[in-house]
Order: sequence, then C-alpha cells, then structure tokens
Amino acid sequence: MNVAERIAALRSRMEEKGIDAYVVPTADFHQSEYVGEHFKARKYISGFSGSYGTVVITRDDGGLWTDGRYFFQAENELCGSGIRLMKMFVGDTPSITEYLCERVTEGGTVAFDGRVLSMGEGQEYEEELAKKQIHIQYSVDLIDDIWEDRPPLSDKPAFFLEEKYSGESTASKLKRVRKAMEEYGATSHIIASLDDVCWLLNVRGDDIDFFPLMLSYAIVKQDKVELYVDEAKLDGRIRDELNKNQVAVHPYNGIYEDVKTMDASETVLIDPMKMNYALYKNIPCKIVEAANPTILMKAMKNEVELENIRRAHIKDGVAVTKFMHWIKTRYDKEKITELSSAARLTELRASQEGYIRDSFEPLCAFADHAAMMHYSPSEESDVTLSSGAFFLNDTGGGYYEGSTDITRTFVLGSVDAQMKRYFTAVVRAMMRLSRARFLYGCYGYNLDVLARGPIWDLDLDYQCGTGHGVGYLANVHEPPTGFRWYVVPSKNEHHKLEEGMVITDEPGIYEDGQFGIRIENEFIVKKGVKNKYGQFMYFETITFAPIDLDGIDPEEMSRDEREWLNQYHEQVYEKIGPHLTEEERNWLKEYTRPI
Amino acid sequence: MNVAERIAALRSRMEEKGIDAYVVPTADFHQSEYVGEHFKARKYISGFSGSYGTVVITRDDGGLWTDGRYFFQAENELCGSGIRLMKMFVGDTPSITEYLCERVTEGGTVAFDGRVLSMGEGQEYEEELAKKQIHIQYSVDLIDDIWEDRPPLSDKPAFFLEEKYSGESTASKLKRVRKAMEEYGATSHIIASLDDVCWLLNVRGDDIDFFPLMLSYAIVKQDKVELYVDEAKLDGRIRDELNKNQVAVHPYNGIYEDVKTMDASETVLIDPMKMNYALYKNIPCKIVEAANPTILMKAMKNEVELENIRRAHIKDGVAVTKFMHWIKTRYDKEKITELSSAARLTELRASQEGYIRDSFEPLCAFADHAAMMHYSPSEESDVTLSSGAFFLNDTGGGYYEGSTDITRTFVLGSVDAQMKRYFTAVVRAMMRLSRARFLYGCYGYNLDVLARGPIWDLDLDYQCGTGHGVGYLANVHEPPTGFRWYVVPSKNEHHKLEEGMVITDEPGIYEDGQFGIRIENEFIVKKGVKNKYGQFMYFETITFAPIDLDGIDPEEMSRDEREWLNQYHEQVYEKIGPHLTEEERNWLKEYTRPI
Repeated sequence: MNVAERIAALRSRMEEKGIDAYVVPTADFHQSEYVGEHFKARKYISGFSGSYGTVVITRDDGGLWTDGRYFFQAENELCGSGIRLMKMFVGDTPSITEYLCERVTEGGTVAFDGRVLSMGEGQEYEEELAKKQIHIQYSVDLIDDIWEDRPPLSDKPAFFLEEKYSGESTASKLKRVRKAMEEYGATSHIIASLDDVCWLLNVRGDDIDFFPLMLSYAIVKQDKVELYVDEAKLDGRIRDELNKNQVAVHPYNGIYEDVKTMDASETVLIDPMKMNYALYKNIPCKIVEAANPTILMKAMKNEVELENIRRAHIKDGVAVTKFMHWIKTRYDKEKITELSSAARLTELRASQEGYIRDSFEPLCAFADHAAMMHYSPSEESDVTLSSGAFFLNDTGGGYYEGSTDITRTFVLGSVDAQMKRYFTAVVRAMMRLSRARFLYGCYGYNLDVLARGPIWDLDLDYQCGTGHGVGYLANVHEPPTGFRWYVVPSKNEHHKLEEGMVITDEPGIYEDGQFGIRIENEFIVKKGVKNKYGQFMYFETITFAPIDLDGIDPEEMSRDEREWLNQYHEQVYEKIGPHLTEEERNWLKEYTRPI
Repeated sequence: MNVAERIAALRSRMEEKGIDAYVVPTADFHQSEYVGEHFKARKYISGFSGSYGTVVITRDDGGLWTDGRYFFQAENELCGSGIRLMKMFVGDTPSITEYLCERVTEGGTVAFDGRVLSMGEGQEYEEELAKKQIHIQYSVDLIDDIWEDRPPLSDKPAFFLEEKYSGESTASKLKRVRKAMEEYGATSHIIASLDDVCWLLNVRGDDIDFFPLMLSYAIVKQDKVELYVDEAKLDGRIRDELNKNQVAVHPYNGIYEDVKTMDASETVLIDPMKMNYALYKNIPCKIVEAANPTILMKAMKNEVELENIRRAHIKDGVAVTKFMHWIKTRYDKEKITELSSAARLTELRASQEGYIRDSFEPLCAFADHAAMMHYSPSEESDVTLSSGAFFLNDTGGGYYEGSTDITRTFVLGSVDAQMKRYFTAVVRAMMRLSRARFLYGCYGYNLDVLARGPIWDLDLDYQCGTGHGVGYLANVHEPPTGFRWYVVPSKNEHHKLEEGMVITDEPGIYEDGQFGIRIENEFIVKKGVKNKYGQFMYFETITFAPIDLDGIDPEEMSRDEREWLNQYHEQVYEKIGPHLTEEERNWLKEYTRPI
C-alpha cells in the first residue's frame, strides 16, 4: 500500500468504529527520544520521516504538525498523501486540539493509542475536547489493524551491566528508591521510562534506535518488583540477578491489565513526565505525582561510573582526533561526503575496545547544512566536502564505560575573518562556562550566560539550550539538569547542579544558508572548597579532542582564554597522543600548539 | 522613664487588658525601609537602635529578635533591660511564633498594633497561634499609652514634583493604573506604600528618615481617588493638582474606618507585600491580590526622569570626586574620622544645585568596620582614618533630578598584594555585569554570575544581592528587580529586566576583622538591536567617579577589562573635570590615567 491507500484503509476502520478523527504521534510507550521500527506508525501513515511530528486523520482531511526544523522535508515527503503540513508556532496555525474542536462535531469521537501519548498530552486532549463534548477512545491502535508487514516489537537480547561498569548493585539502588517511596508515602512506584528501569536493574538492551535500552516497565513495591518485559530477552546472568532481588517477570504489555487490579488501598508514585496516558488512566488507586526518584540518582554518577566515563572519553577522543586528522588531511585529496565521513567516524569508534554502538544519530553537516541545528545527512541531502567552509560533526559513542557526546567544527581550507571571529566566539563561549566556579545551589539558568554572553555580544543567539545531562549507556539527553537561560517546565531539566552530574557545554552560531559552528565538550560537576560561604563547585572537563586552531583568531581572545586553550590542548596531546600513529601524533602536535 | 520602667509600665497595661504577650516590630504603617521618629516604638521599649528587630514582651520575659549584623550592638544596648537577645538564624533560636506558642498558655492573648505588621506577618501569627488557640488582638497600641513624650506624627510640608521632574502627569498615571485595575476586575485599589502613592500623585514629603516621602494612603476608584493624609502638609500647588484629578483628601488614619464601610459588591486590588495587617483585616469585600501596578510603572523610568537622573549623577559624581580628592590628599594631614568624612560628603552634595537631602544613611566604614556590610558610624564606633587600609563609603544624594547610590572604596597609603588582588577582583566583577548584552526576558538571576563570578573564582562570596532598583526621589531599594543568583520570594524583586529600570551593580569582598571592599555603579536598562533573535538589551552606566587606581593590579585584568576601565575613566574626566577646581582637576587627571 502507498500512503494514500493506507490513509484510505485507516478511514474505513475509523468509519467502522465510529471514530471521527484519529491521532498518530511519534512515540513509543515510554516517551523515548528514539523509537524502534515497530513504533514508527506516524511515518507509516504519512510518509514523513522526521523525528518530530503528529498526524491527525479525519474522515475528509489530514494534517501533520511539526516544527521549523522539518518544514522543508515535510513538504516533500507529504506530497501526494493528502495530508496538509501544519506549521507549528507559525502565524495562526491551529493547535491540534483547536483543529480537532473545529473539525469534529459536538458529541463526536477522537481516538488514539493512549500508550503513545504522554499523560500530559492526554490530559490536555481531555480538557480541550470536553469543551465540545467530544469523546476520547484511548485504547485503540488502528494503525496496527492496517499495517500488514508491521515490524514486530524488538526481540533483541538484553545484557547485564556488571558492577565494574554500574558501580552500584540493584539491591542498593532498590533500597534508595524504596526509601524515597516511603518519603512520598507510596506503597508502589510505577516506572515507565526505559532508562530508569534499565538503570535500576543494571540491564541494557537493543530495542530502540541508538540508546541501548530494553523495552520494559517496572512496578517497585516494598518487598518485590514486577518487571514487564519480553522474557526471551533475558539471559541467565540477568535472571540470576532478578531472582536475587525478588524481581518477578511478566509479559511486556501485561502491565495495562495488571495495574487495573491494584488494591484501592495502595498509593502509587508516578512521574507525570515519564508515563503514558493509557497506563495512567488504568491506575485505580491513589496517585502521588513526583519525578521518578531514579532520575536524580541516575544523573549523579557514582565514582565507578565516573572513572569509566573518563576512560570512554579517552577512547572517543582518540577516534575523533583520528577522524579530524583524516578529514583535515584528506578532504581535498579524495571524495569525502557527509555520509561517508559519518561512516568513517563510526568505524573509528567501533575499533575502540568496549564499543557497543554510536550513542545517537551522527550529525555531520557541511557548510550551510550546519546552519540547520539538527541536520543529519540522508542519501538525498548528502554533499561532498570541499574547501573554504566549516564542517560540523556532532556525534557520540556508546561504550561499556559510558556514552559520549562531542561536537567539533573543522575548518576546511581557509575561511574569512568574520567566520573566524564567530568561530573564536564559540570557543570562548564554551570555555567560559567550563571554567565556572560557583556555589552549590546554582541552577543551569544561573550559569548559562557564561557561554551565551560572547554570542549575545555579537547580537546573535543560538536559540536552544547550552547543554544537557548525558546518560551512562542510556539517553543522550538525560534529565534533570541542563543549561538554558529561561525555564522550560516541560523540559524536566530544572534541578540544581549536583556533584557527579555529567553535562554538555555546546554553544554555537548558526547563519542561515551559510554555516553553522558548534563546539561541545562534556564535563563532570565536582565539589570544590567548602568554607563559611558554602560548598563551592566546579566542572571537570572530560572531552579531549583538538579544537581546530585554523578557526581561531588569537586577537579575539584574552590572555586568560588563550592560556586555558593552550592548557587544554596540552592535555589533549598528553592523553590522546599515545594512542595515535606517528603521523597522526606529529599532526596533533601541530594542532595542539600553544597560541 | 528608663527602659526597665517602660517595660514595667507596658506589663501593667498588658495586665489591665488581659494581654499575655505584646509584639513590637520595627515599622511604620507602610512597610517603609526607614521610619519617622514617631514610629520608633521598638527602640523606645528596648533601647535597641538597630534598623532591624522585633521585641516581644511577656508578663515575665522579653526577647529581641534580630540578625547577625546587630548581635554585638544589641548585646550592648539591651544591657539591663531584661530583654534577651534572640539570635535569628543561629542554632536553635526559636522563631517569634514558636516562642509565643511556648510562653503563652492555651487560650491566652497575644497583641500588637496591626498597622505596623505586614499582612503576611499577621497571617503567619494567625496560623501559628491558632494551633494553640491563642487569641490575637491587633487593634491596640500599648506603646502609645505609655510613651509620654512620643514624637508626634511628622507634619512637615509636602511638595509637588513638576512634570519637568516627573515626566508624566497624575492624570496619565491614573489612566494607566485604572486600566490595570480593569484587567484585574477591581473596582477599587488600595495603595498603602508611600513611594507608590507619592509617585502616582507626583508629590513628595519629609515624613520619614532619608526618603522624601509623605505619610499617606490612597484608594483609587474609576472616577475618583481618596487620599488619606494630614491635610496641613498640602500646599496650594498640590491642592490644585489633586482637585484637577478628583482626589478627595481625608484624615491620615481615617482609612481604617473608611475601608470597613466599603460596599460588599466591590472588588479591591491590594498588594500583599505592600499592606499592613490591620488595614487588610478591615477590608469587608472581595480582594484580588497582585503587585501594585504602580511598582512596575514607577521602576520603568520615563525619558524625562532618565535625563534628570543622568544630570543628578553628574552632580553627585562631582561631590564624590571632590570627596575622594579631599580624603586621599588630606587623611594623613588632618584628623578625618568616619563621621566627619560623612558630614563633609553631605556638605559637598548639599552645595550642588537642586540637592534635597542624602538618599539614605551614609555608610562610611574604615578598615575592619567595612567588613560589616551595613556598618554605619556612630559616636561610639567612630574612628580616625589612617594609612595602610581601605575606606569604604556607600552613600547617595537626593536631588530634584533623582536619587543616587554610589559606593567607592579608597586606598589610604599602600595595601598589600592580596588586598590589591581582591580590590581588582571587585572592580572586574562590577565591570563584567555592567557590560552585559542580553536578550529581553532575562531576570537578575540570569546575569548575577557575571558580577559574582570573579569573586567565586577566589572561593569567596559577598552573601547578598549584587544590585537593586533605585527609586526617583523615593525608596533607594526599589522593587521589582535586582541582581541575585537565587530567588527570594519575599524580596519582591523577581521581574524581568525592563527598559528604563535603574539598577545598582555593587559586588564586594568582606573579610571579617580585616577590611571590606565594594564598588558600586548604577546603570539604566536600555534596548539595543532588535533582530530575528529577539530584542537585545544592555546597560548604560550613569555613575561617574574614579575607581581608585591605587587598589588595582593591572596584571589581574584582561586587556578588555583594562580598556573598559580606561574608557570609563576617560568619561569620568570629561564629565566631572569641568566642575572641579584646577587642583582637583589635575589630581583627577592622574586618577583617571589609562593603565
């Protein structure tokens, strides 16, 4: 079936079931950032392959809601589908609920699979649609009815993360979670986010794109844990650990019926940001809403994890440095494209011991492509690298010792004075934040200006956060902390900077149709001096790869800034140099020279 | 009567009236920062003269609650009074309500003059004391009963602020306030804060210490205004303006009975941060709580005010520069003390045209005295200036063209390398914030780190805000904006930075028993470039007086920082130089030399 035929099939199912509008968002049952093939229902029904968008099909109309990053791509991919592009946040584009209220008659029915909507989205639909007495059916998956060759749910095996990698036993983690539950007066705690379940049980999987997570839910009680997962994924090592911790295994989708039978006397702790609407609606007892206690515990990496992460970053720095050497010395001698370079970088990472997979979709963007902040090359968009431009690569590796996220922007050939000025500003911005010393209690919004200041000084802005938490073999964007000057409640990143958090620092400058520059290091939040003023904190930089000196105008930097850059490059040479070929090392010496 | 006799008299009145504990805070009826003599009841009953503290007298005990700034002074002044010092925020000192619940038996009675407690404090007493069924009497003023020679309420004349100073007519201001009232659905708006009433009516007075304000309340309705004030203060000019704007005048204290008669159908807009408990309790109709609309209007100075303020700062800069010259060249030749220097500075300000009075209590603090952030010299504490130390002066003038607030720290003789390092850090801190460029929407907490960063880099902190709004012939600490890295809800300073706000920038370093350094400039929030990223904002510095180069180690500054300081000093010389004697000007040339 082509897209038009699929929509026709959907409409006929809608008619049978008395449904006036059907909503298909981009999500799995766990609000995951990347989803497995089974969950790509919105792509199936519309043809639109972007990472963000929601389709609504009515009896005689259809719309795709997505944001500015995808307008161009969506126009192309929706062509011939009969689905109209609804440009979010532009002019008077109606919101989805406004559209539904307009198109569905009073007393009509809107349906969706409540498992792929977040609790908050579902509640918003409820509230808005109630104004027009429109009914909601949230327990139907019409796409599943018509999608004949739908990829099955992933059945890839999971693996156990030994304590030398995790640094803390499940027994110890469970003890901490149960203590938090007690503080909330909760008898049960439903965990629906994959990274939280995997962290708690020290398991990882291969069920979604990029992040090594296992499709599962857990219900933690004071004396046991109910784990909902495809049992076939679990090997003996995992089963042993689960048994040791009184974890009972149930079929993955069994949780929806099981929660309905919870005792009315129970109090359930749930995280409204980390739960789907259907699961929430099925809970029959008292609910306490709070952030999953695992979120903060997971974000504050322990010493074993931190030691591992430092090691992972050395491996990753070796791969990125080899990559930079290859690009900078070969781009004008052989054909290198965005896609081929991404493949090469993956190879270089894969040859590092302990490599599992890339930690997210590689963003390799040449020249004006990099002005699109989230550009990721496809067969159609791919271009060959050439001289006189920037080449931005925002990539990462997943190793048993942790996940990395690094961005470097390489200068190919020579660039003009303004491009150098901007490049230098981005480097200064990144450095200023990484050198901050501050009192415990600071939030990201207190420090964001350190990075953003040099960009604001140019009357420019990068219009996104400066950095985000990074998971350990988990989500590459990990709550609850990041750097942003304004508070975005839905981002779930509004937490004080705590010891052991691992965060990125990635300011940039993006000039439409021209170029994009981003430099990204990661650092660990550390405790410094404690004195009568309080607990001082600082950042330990853990990313080591050269910052391209060809882009830097030393005149734009203060003496302090040059000194810091020189010290950083000295460390890069010391840590990365020993792992390179002699040719690469000689090249690195030059690219880490003091300025 | 001495203090012990006063307390005995109070206790006998308490017994007559069946009161078990009587609370005497430091306040007038308007939550003013400074109060007139009539309102110094807490000083009268306890002997303690500090600016912050609350006395509680029970039948057989008494306590004074104050904070760390005043422990030493309070111990001395309370001696022999029988009142115990209760060190707030230290160890297990009970709060006032905890103390009352402990000392007063169930069903007992606590009393206070509800006009000198804020609405929030009164409500807290209600809530806490209710737990022990303790009654509250809030309409008694027992101090008035016993204070025989109590100074009467001020009867000083008020004056009208012509439009060349205020920049906006009362008619126009009333129109804006009434529009805001409509948005809140309010039929009446009670304004109980002196600066808000005075701003709205373009009047000023002489009723409290330092701030040129007039004791008054206003009730704004859609077609008229009820003004509560001692009519004798109003001259013909003011009366004309009041008549023109349908402002009816009533006796100052008449408001308490008048509000009781408000119609039940009314909706009254009040600001819970700007209202006393008694007035609030007397309101019989529906209440809408919100910040007084006048607060934001008043904080965003208009162009006329801004032009005046710039002029006031030149006058003030001339006085401070002359003062600096005098101190720096004479302190080792004649006896100059903290108090005598303060008097000299007041004289220098007074000789400027348009001077009205100092804008707050001058803080002139030599050597270790300056380590106490709010030290203000008294006859007992006064010391003579001498060599090898810092002399901090935080002072301001009130002119028809506005109020100033400036701090300079002078080096007397020579100071050691660490003191210079600290001095330089404070200068760098002040400059870094003043040079910020930022997007509209920023709060103080987004930018505070620019000033605090260089101090945090030394593992030090000044433990207070970096800056505050400044009123125009009004409160020197003016809401709703300031610079602070953490949010203090009670400070009422949590507002975005808006065009036309005038704010101080005053980081410091305070070393107990050794020295204190603070450098303070004021700036105006201005609009910069507007482009696709948004509205950029910046600060226009308006304070001009030399920053003592004898304290600066140029090696501690970046080239940019030195350049900025040199540019600033060039402006100081240009703007201030023409108003000095030749000798002073030659001296200024030297003290504004490029480094």
